[in-house]
Amino acid sequence: MDYVYGPGRNHLFVPGPVNIPDPVIRAMNRQNEDYRSPAVPALTKTLLEDVKKIFKTTTGTPFLFPTTGTGAWESALTNTLSPGDRIVSFLIGQFSLLWIDQQQRLNFKVDVVESDWGQGADLAVLESKLRQDPTHTIKAICIVHNETATGVTNDLSAVRKLLDAYRHPALLLVDGVSSICALDFRMDEWGVDVALTGSQKALSLPTGLGIVCASPKALEASKTAKSVRVFFDWKDYLKFYKMGTYWPYTPSIQLLYGLRTALDLIFEEGLDNVIKRHTRLGTATRLAVEAWGLKNCTQKQEWFSDTVTAVVVPSYIESSDIVKHAWKRYNLSLGLGLNKVAGKVFRIGHLGNLNELQLLGCLSGVEMVLKDVGYPVKLGSGVAAAAAYLSNSTPLIPSRI
Amino acid sequence: MDYVYGPGRNHLFVPGPVNIPDPVIRAMNRQNEDYRSPAVPALTKTLLEDVKKIFKTTTGTPFLFPTTGTGAWESALTNTLSPGDRIVSFLIGQFSLLWIDQQQRLNFKVDVVESDWGQGADLAVLESKLRQDPTHTIKAICIVHNETATGVTNDLSAVRKLLDAYRHPALLLVDGVSSICALDFRMDEWGVDVALTGSQKALSLPTGLGIVCASPKALEASKTAKSVRVFFDWKDYLKFYKMGTYWPYTPSIQLLYGLRTALDLIFEEGLDNVIKRHTRLGTATRLAVEAWGLKNCTQKQEWFSDTVTAVVVPSYIESSDIVKHAWKRYNLSLGLGLNKVAGKVFRIGHLGNLNELQLLGCLSGVEMVLKDVGYPVKLGSGVAAAAAYLSNSTPLIPSRI
Amino acid sequence: MDYVYGPGRNHLFVPGPVNIPDPVIRAMNRQNEDYRSPAVPALTKTLLEDVKKIFKTTTGTPFLFPTTGTGAWESALTNTLSPGDRIVSFLIGQFSLLWIDQQQRLNFKVDVVESDWGQGADLAVLESKLRQDPTHTIKAICIVHNETATGVTNDLSAVRKLLDAYRHPALLLVDGVSSICALDFRMDEWGVDVALTGSQKALSLPTGLGIVCASPKALEASKTAKSVRVFFDWKDYLKFYKMGTYWPYTPSIQLLYGLRTALDLIFEEGLDNVIKRHTRLGTATRLAVEAWGLKNCTQKQEWFSDTVTAVVVPSYIESSDIVKHAWKRYNLSLGLGLNKVAGKVFRIGHLGNLNELQLLGCLSGVEMVLKDVGYPVKLGSGVAAAAAYLSNSTPLIPSRI
Amino acid sequence: MDYVYGPGRNHLFVPGPVNIPDPVIRAMNRQNEDYRSPAVPALTKTLLEDVKKIFKTTTGTPFLFPTTGTGAWESALTNTLSPGDRIVSFLIGQFSLLWIDQQQRLNFKVDVVESDWGQGADLAVLESKLRQDPTHTIKAICIVHNETATGVTNDLSAVRKLLDAYRHPALLLVDGVSSICALDFRMDEWGVDVALTGSQKALSLPTGLGIVCASPKALEASKTAKSVRVFFDWKDYLKFYKMGTYWPYTPSIQLLYGLRTALDLIFEEGLDNVIKRHTRLGTATRLAVEAWGLKNCTQKQEWFSDTVTAVVVPSYIESSDIVKHAWKRYNLSLGLGLNKVAGKVFRIGHLGNLNELQLLGCLSGVEMVLKDVGYPVKLGSGVAAAAAYLSNSTPLIPSRI
Repeated sequence: MDYVYGPGRNHLFVPGPVNIPDPVIRAMNRQNEDYRSPAVPALTKTLLEDVKKIFKTTTGTPFLFPTTGTGAWESALTNTLSPGDRIVSFLIGQFSLLWIDQQQRLNFKVDVVESDWGQGADLAVLESKLRQDPTHTIKAICIVHNETATGVTNDLSAVRKLLDAYRHPALLLVDGVSSICALDFRMDEWGVDVALTGSQKALSLPTGLGIVCASPKALEASKTAKSVRVFFDWKDYLKFYKMGTYWPYTPSIQLLYGLRTALDLIFEEGLDNVIKRHTRLGTATRLAVEAWGLKNCTQKQEWFSDTVTAVVVPSYIESSDIVKHAWKRYNLSLGLGLNKVAGKVFRIGHLGNLNELQLLGCLSGVEMVLKDVGYPVKLGSGVAAAAAYLSNSTPLIPSRI
Repeated sequence: MDYVYGPGRNHLFVPGPVNIPDPVIRAMNRQNEDYRSPAVPALTKTLLEDVKKIFKTTTGTPFLFPTTGTGAWESALTNTLSPGDRIVSFLIGQFSLLWIDQQQRLNFKVDVVESDWGQGADLAVLESKLRQDPTHTIKAICIVHNETATGVTNDLSAVRKLLDAYRHPALLLVDGVSSICALDFRMDEWGVDVALTGSQKALSLPTGLGIVCASPKALEASKTAKSVRVFFDWKDYLKFYKMGTYWPYTPSIQLLYGLRTALDLIFEEGLDNVIKRHTRLGTATRLAVEAWGLKNCTQKQEWFSDTVTAVVVPSYIESSDIVKHAWKRYNLSLGLGLNKVAGKVFRIGHLGNLNELQLLGCLSGVEMVLKDVGYPVKLGSGVAAAAAYLSNSTPLIPSRI
Repeated sequence: MDYVYGPGRNHLFVPGPVNIPDPVIRAMNRQNEDYRSPAVPALTKTLLEDVKKIFKTTTGTPFLFPTTGTGAWESALTNTLSPGDRIVSFLIGQFSLLWIDQQQRLNFKVDVVESDWGQGADLAVLESKLRQDPTHTIKAICIVHNETATGVTNDLSAVRKLLDAYRHPALLLVDGVSSICALDFRMDEWGVDVALTGSQKALSLPTGLGIVCASPKALEASKTAKSVRVFFDWKDYLKFYKMGTYWPYTPSIQLLYGLRTALDLIFEEGLDNVIKRHTRLGTATRLAVEAWGLKNCTQKQEWFSDTVTAVVVPSYIESSDIVKHAWKRYNLSLGLGLNKVAGKVFRIGHLGNLNELQLLGCLSGVEMVLKDVGYPVKLGSGVAAAAAYLSNSTPLIPSRI
Repeated sequence: MDYVYGPGRNHLFVPGPVNIPDPVIRAMNRQNEDYRSPAVPALTKTLLEDVKKIFKTTTGTPFLFPTTGTGAWESALTNTLSPGDRIVSFLIGQFSLLWIDQQQRLNFKVDVVESDWGQGADLAVLESKLRQDPTHTIKAICIVHNETATGVTNDLSAVRKLLDAYRHPALLLVDGVSSICALDFRMDEWGVDVALTGSQKALSLPTGLGIVCASPKALEASKTAKSVRVFFDWKDYLKFYKMGTYWPYTPSIQLLYGLRTALDLIFEEGLDNVIKRHTRLGTATRLAVEAWGLKNCTQKQEWFSDTVTAVVVPSYIESSDIVKHAWKRYNLSLGLGLNKVAGKVFRIGHLGNLNELQLLGCLSGVEMVLKDVGYPVKLGSGVAAAAAYLSNSTPLIPSRI
């Protein structure tokens, strides 16, 4: 199945699955083993402890579901809510749309708060809904921290402030799929009740782990939540946690070892340095886009995402041609525009285990592709702008000083 | 996390996860890639075609869920049934018990047909229920083809015959987790409506794929089934199958390439030869158990399983000591007795990519462990009995003749 | 030993060892096996046949020594020459120097023909020596096709023409370490008697194979050559070739499988396309150097190397600072200046399995490093120049059209 | 090239290349890197220090040649001796024969002391030669510690005692290819001047490293030794050791990381425990051979090898049929009889990273093969004898207690 072989490396700049670091690939290159022997529980114990650090929580309880982000969503919702519960959910792009679709199919009553694609969550509407809800009919706020389709980062601390201001007890459920471990995310400080991510995003692993973290309040809610669930039920996990065997069903041994190494690498770099690196790469990308004379799909700076940039193309260009051409000519994988912005934007994912020169290679590729599809770009302009910034902001690699 | 390192190989004889062939480990040793590029759909297309062959179906529709067997169960049930539906389900061991627990939590009305652990499904009871159901209140029969906890294989063709005899339209849902690709399984011929397995069993992959195959009748049922489902919903898959992109959410690239190689190896050996090899290894194991003077947990020959053998130990021995000791002294991983048979049986898994000498090494290890825990075994007796049989029945490796 | 871990990929642009393609790493990810079983000879047979294609020979006999380029040199010399034999050898850089050192230590009488570092072999001197050698005291001409230290490619066809013009029977021994499989090389057409390369160069494998190819005339010479040799003796190999077992001592199984895949990838791309790709990347690199206002160490265009570019830095810069800084800040590995050009040049290796965007990433890294060490480079200038050229010359990837 | 695929694992019991532990394969699963960056020298430094431990030397100087055992032989000889030097060399099997052939081709004057194949070195002859050499014309004693072809281990301490008794200054050169890291070997205590091994033997790596360790006396001798050498010259290595860069030419990065892990595993188990494990497996094998009623090629217990057992077959059996059949039917790789014992013996290698159950699997395979080729073996007899011994002597795995 290597009929797609091209010389040299594939340049993977979709916003997930992302580049896996070599040590992680190495760690996963292994046989199966008995997950009921003492080895796997001992490993799992360290993972559960360490995974909390990337959520910035000390009080949360993590679950490592053998699933994807979609499954993690389902786990977050069904463990905390009952059919018919009213929730407020923000629609700002394709992934928030899909989550809302799931919420509706799971029979919650969803107040959809829609924004233009390219804008963040409309918190004014949220405020008004909270104000008008003295009896606390709203059971949960569902929000995507970073909308991967448009490159929009929402302000979670502002959401928390609103809830606090109205002393509203609604649960705060956060999709952190393209944010956690890349953007500033603080589960405890921001009072997030359920946060979740997928292994193939900023953790830089293969797909296969849906990581869900529940606050004590969310755990409490799970005791009475009436949504039907078995595979995604926290209860079964908690039972096995108590027994010290951890797994109600067979985990992927390989992903657990991969996660161990991924966390080790993140801690070696330092989580805050990882986040700074994402800020750096995000900023550089936006400077390149500006230099090309193109527009960021994200409409205001406050929403700029440091993990993915959606670039708006002129109307005479079909953005999927850019994606196809990048792959066919330069072995460069870019993200398509989805749904409402299909054909209008292409996306550069700059999250996960990535460095400056990888990004600059990508940006020079994008320039050549833009030229190929007829956009009058000055070759080198974006790279120059990005490099000027990176040249001033990139630190030495600590271990090599 | 290699604190459990012991010299030489781990001898993995739990009934899953099983030994992964080297070519499969090799195939999975790879980077992430964009699953929306043409490469992944093209690969997926071949997988869906070829996976049908191991289910022996031409009319079925397979789904490769990024989940485990437990998730595959859930997918089978929720896509075909509605809450309150009456189903008949056989309880013959820990895994059928867990499935029944799931069925009940998913709000089906379950007629549990219990057998002694060590016996197969009680088809006489099924017959009587079918006879007494002229109005077809029974919507589905749920049966585990091979109960991994007791080493019992049920006779699926007999179930089909009963359904046909009574012209009963109930769906036939089959857990083939420790059977498909190892035991004789014929989805179309036996009129199975949903069959499922997990990647870490006879397919000899890591955990992470729950493979579900639906008959046309099951697909039809899914259109009206009212069970709530999103992640496990066939509808989303079918929509993406039609579009030719195949994946409603991110698949595990690595497992797909691994599955490709696993299928290639199975087809190279020949599925029927794979099944014969399991018969051979199962028979050899039972001969060893007999030579040791121990009892098979499976009470009659008609139920003997060729993928796992549960061995009953004398009452003065705690079977978990055997499992612990095997791991601690001989780097041998055996299966524990579960639930009702905890402490009373240990299990030898002999499924997946395994050959004669691996099994004989395991059997000689079991002998030494039996001696260590105080059972008066004659060292070499079981191996001799197994080898006498294998020596007469093992074919030459075709590619090396 | 990952204390040198830095986020993202290492950008490997030394002129060897070079980037290994993922499929090759995958192929080498395997156990040992019995090299005396039928499998390894069968594999070896295909390798020996196919390796000839990359030397462009049908009459040559290849040897896959478990050694490095230095060992391959020794094999070439000791199998064809006797102590005291007169040879003409060109000194144009560090690697030709090292080969000459070896020639002298092996007790040949070496006529060293020296050029300035940055110039090619002085063929005028060769001509005069040939003219003055009617009795054929010169037994061999030793020439490095591509001097890796200075980025100078010699004109082998011109050497052959001289030998033919003087009807001189001297053997033509060629170091093709950084040329074969990357530059235009034609063993048969150019009458090369021994050609050699190392696995870690354009073949894009790990170090460990010294590949030597002997013409019929060289094989003939080996029958009477009196140089002492055992490990590197062709005779032992030829004996085992005849027996069909191929190996006088244990080969590296893993490298053989790696070579198989490396050759498959080269043939899939097409050897001529591989060479064109090197021309393209070499040209792009030189355009960048020019745009930066820096000098190529190679003094004339006729000698420009498409596998490595040695860049001369201004006298106020120590070139090793560039190399150190690139590694410490940008995870970029560049080549040091060696010996006479130490401190004065740094080298960009652009050979092996590499594509356009990888190179552009490297070039943008070099720009930032140049700025960091105080050279007044215009960021983006080199990348722009390279991209302008690449944008016009890079073909679509055939398998993806 | 997997046309030789057979289900399940290959059982590799040739006396090299041997089974590679999974953590070593994992460690080698990596990209090339710049060997001139600080990372590779830092790694090399630890390797050189740690490799001395497996030679049991504190005063020796190790060299990690990118070569095989044959190259390591050549390095030992050419660095310490001059053409025409008289050496005493013991011929006791195929590998000592090959080494003697090399010694003769390198132009030393070799006193060959021959024993029957199956006997150890004739030390009485050595004693007489030393007695008759008051002027010290003998420059070196060359001895294979463990003759891999016949499974004979020589008594090196006895050789040292003789040299000491006669105050003879001859160098003691030892081939430890199938002994070091498996048998009791003490370079310093036994006054060995050059010892050597290959990576694919007890170190359990792929082929590719010829490890040579020189005593101070050997290093001194190398200053005046006149044998021609370049690739294998210690001088070049010592020069780079002094510079702290360690490598006169490109090493195999992957093998260095593999060696690091291999040493880590050996130290984790404990070198003395590794040796005891080999004693245990060797003893078990011999007990099986005895139980089968077959003869050990090794004629006296004092020479029994704990790394390889050569088994003599009855005259009506061609031993290569056993080897072929084992591979074709049971995926079992055994060693052929070589040269004088071709057709008469087959060999079971039991060295490297191997445990009890692997060996028992092999032994039961050998039993079945013996039956297949017409030898009246009692199936289970050898396994029973081996297991009876192993059951009493195998310790718990320390990390799992």
